[in-house]
Amino acid sequence: MANKPTVNLGILGLGVVGQGVLKHLNRNRKILESRLGVRLKVSKIAVRNKRLKRNVKVNPKLLTEDGFEVVNDPSIQVVCELIGGTTLAKQLTLQALKNGKIVVTANKALLCEHGNQVIRAAKRSEGHIFFEASVAGGIPIIKSIREGLVANRFPGIHGILNGTCNYILTRMQAEGKPFGEILSEAKALGYAEADESLDVDGIDAAHKAGILAYLAHGKWIPMNKMLIEGIREITTSDILAADAMGYRIKHLASVVSDAKKNTLFVGVYPALIPKSHILGRVDDVYNAVCVSGDVVGSTIHIGRGAGQDATASAVISDIADAVFTTQGAGLMNLIDEKNDPLTSTLEELQIASMEEVKSSFYLRLSVIDQPGVLSKVTALMAKEKISIARVVQQLDSKPSNKKVKAAAVLTLTTHQCSESAIERAVRSLKRSSPVLSKPFLLRIAHFND
Amino acid sequence: MANKPTVNLGILGLGVVGQGVLKHLNRNRKILESRLGVRLKVSKIAVRNKRLKRNVKVNPKLLTEDGFEVVNDPSIQVVCELIGGTTLAKQLTLQALKNGKIVVTANKALLCEHGNQVIRAAKRSEGHIFFEASVAGGIPIIKSIREGLVANRFPGIHGILNGTCNYILTRMQAEGKPFGEILSEAKALGYAEADESLDVDGIDAAHKAGILAYLAHGKWIPMNKMLIEGIREITTSDILAADAMGYRIKHLASVVSDAKKNTLFVGVYPALIPKSHILGRVDDVYNAVCVSGDVVGSTIHIGRGAGQDATASAVISDIADAVFTTQGAGLMNLIDEKNDPLTSTLEELQIASMEEVKSSFYLRLSVIDQPGVLSKVTALMAKEKISIARVVQQLDSKPSNKKVKAAAVLTLTTHQCSESAIERAVRSLKRSSPVLSKPFLLRIAHFND
Repeated sequence: MANKPTVNLGILGLGVVGQGVLKHLNRNRKILESRLGVRLKVSKIAVRNKRLKRNVKVNPKLLTEDGFEVVNDPSIQVVCELIGGTTLAKQLTLQALKNGKIVVTANKALLCEHGNQVIRAAKRSEGHIFFEASVAGGIPIIKSIREGLVANRFPGIHGILNGTCNYILTRMQAEGKPFGEILSEAKALGYAEADESLDVDGIDAAHKAGILAYLAHGKWIPMNKMLIEGIREITTSDILAADAMGYRIKHLASVVSDAKKNTLFVGVYPALIPKSHILGRVDDVYNAVCVSGDVVGSTIHIGRGAGQDATASAVISDIADAVFTTQGAGLMNLIDEKNDPLTSTLEELQIASMEEVKSSFYLRLSVIDQPGVLSKVTALMAKEKISIARVVQQLDSKPSNKKVKAAAVLTLTTHQCSESAIERAVRSLKRSSPVLSKPFLLRIAHFND
Repeated sequence: MANKPTVNLGILGLGVVGQGVLKHLNRNRKILESRLGVRLKVSKIAVRNKRLKRNVKVNPKLLTEDGFEVVNDPSIQVVCELIGGTTLAKQLTLQALKNGKIVVTANKALLCEHGNQVIRAAKRSEGHIFFEASVAGGIPIIKSIREGLVANRFPGIHGILNGTCNYILTRMQAEGKPFGEILSEAKALGYAEADESLDVDGIDAAHKAGILAYLAHGKWIPMNKMLIEGIREITTSDILAADAMGYRIKHLASVVSDAKKNTLFVGVYPALIPKSHILGRVDDVYNAVCVSGDVVGSTIHIGRGAGQDATASAVISDIADAVFTTQGAGLMNLIDEKNDPLTSTLEELQIASMEEVKSSFYLRLSVIDQPGVLSKVTALMAKEKISIARVVQQLDSKPSNKKVKAAAVLTLTTHQCSESAIERAVRSLKRSSPVLSKPFLLRIAHFND
């Protein structure tokens, strides 16, 4: 650790996102420093009011009420601009870039409205600007378009980019309540701002669409050349009618280029999306981006579009890119076992033995079709303390055991139990008289979300 | 162009993937060189048989039948290993790394089975190895986990990683035909190899799961410590029973770590996935990876998992990373208008005017509920040459026009037409006597896939 270089970070703004970045930088510092090969030091934080109480522990000596103290500090290499807005944030960003610093920003309005000026300032001073957190929160969509899909031209990019709109439309769909009512509840729950217009009138999504258009086509499209429509006029009867016709209504952002006509269209608007399309299934505050590339075909990227944690994840990934830039390294380092995030902190990562893994299961049994069989089967399961969730019985048209007149396929699902318990149950079942052939076992997937 | 540095590429293997890489490097060369700021030159290609006919145009002078000629060529900076297998491919990869070259590979077997040795060789010589194409084809999942989600620990990664399994299971679901029958048809159609076992017995997915486990946890898990199950034993009755209980059966790869117990589980196996989960909706040859991060929450990444083009997209993105490494640049360059992929080749990219954009539409009309209204409405649409796809009529419980006794909400969808045509139709409808208030228009999304 001693011979690792130190990278000094300055942070502008300690609101929801700033606090999230500090929280997760501290919490995952060991892994992060091991992955990056440097020490990360937050050396100055600009806030509006030093005396404000905050949910995250901060050394008060780091605080200043003058953002320029941060961007003009020669020891700071990376500046995170998390103030928002296009006045002070713009001045500070331009000054930081002029000073040759790497700027990490979540500020979509600044980029969409002053992108040319900001990028030019970065080029002029050989500074850099990273903005993964500006579009689609925790989804690494900027990096995916700019680097992961660099081989492609992009005829179409479509996305659900505003979590508030998606939350409101999802609840309108689920509960059949009108826009105004859901909006009020969303405000009370913190899913919509007191002034909702940036979100529900499409401005926020338009900022993000502008950034995606720039990434894909190298052009900043002025907002007055975009189609910008919000969701205020959507009624429950629209949602019902769309549903009856096989659609969901979503607030969609589109960046569509037509190579033949040499045109580019950028717009955000409520749209009907087929239920069968993955985008039609992306609900609540989730965001999604569907990128069509001329080489790769379509890729879809889904994740939380906003919130302290998802945004912090994106900001920290930009800090990582910035760190590698300061170190002149061309790629993320390759984790190896010596320098490993888990083994270095936890010493010995064990390979889990299957017996310990808990799961719920699907079990298929070929059984004699006669009364009492189900009770026999469930009794055997109960003996292993396995409780049954559902049972489906089908006629077995081709029983493997030819001696049996009437056979049935019994399929059942269990609640969570250990692999060893279910395997003991399977062994008992195999020996049990009404069971005609080897029981067949499948796991049921559980996801953390 | 003249003062751009040149990066020399060597290619090992000119099979399906190698030809795809050449094809797309040539086709998108202008954009790619503009994005990367270098000239890309394929300077040597090793093949098994120089005289074989190929679908892609190659200068025969570039061909050699000796792979070592490529990896030992001091002018070559980046070597793409697209041979496959773990014998010659391994020798060539190790030699290239020893010579300080950057290796780009799609070889999952080599990485999973000899990852420690290969990564160590890269570190020792300060070479690099990139392997985006080794997992999930065109989805930039390696970069997303390693860079975009670098802020996270990864308690769970779940994925559909084998396109052949997913194709077979999707068709079994859709058509109710047994495994063997679909497998034969898949072979005939080229969706399964003549020897299907690598795919349907889970070996291919296990190789990929091993790579994801390494990325997330820095450990190469030996295959004999993984759970490896294939899909041969799945019957149509399993698929029916699972469907009845709300599930789809998919071949799933899981990398699950338990921070409390300090254990890691890596397995591939057929699993029941709730239909309501996005992974349950990923069909045909598509792959998907669901990454749970402790900071970001869940992100899902979907795209084509195999095939010449998707794999080429991933290989070329690695070539781009390699190029930046050779240039000592720490990030993808920021496209600006001067150095712009579209404007530099196409001179003037126009912003599309809305009137030209074609779309299909959803139209909501509040109308008097009396005979003949629908015919009047459709006649007005026909006048603008707009054809109607579907109509849904609902009773309007709160007509905005209080003078009317019985009102209805008429919603209809159109086939494709121009924005200007639909707007003319809306203006006529607004003036038409049975229409009670301003018609409300929504677009229907069309995706390229």
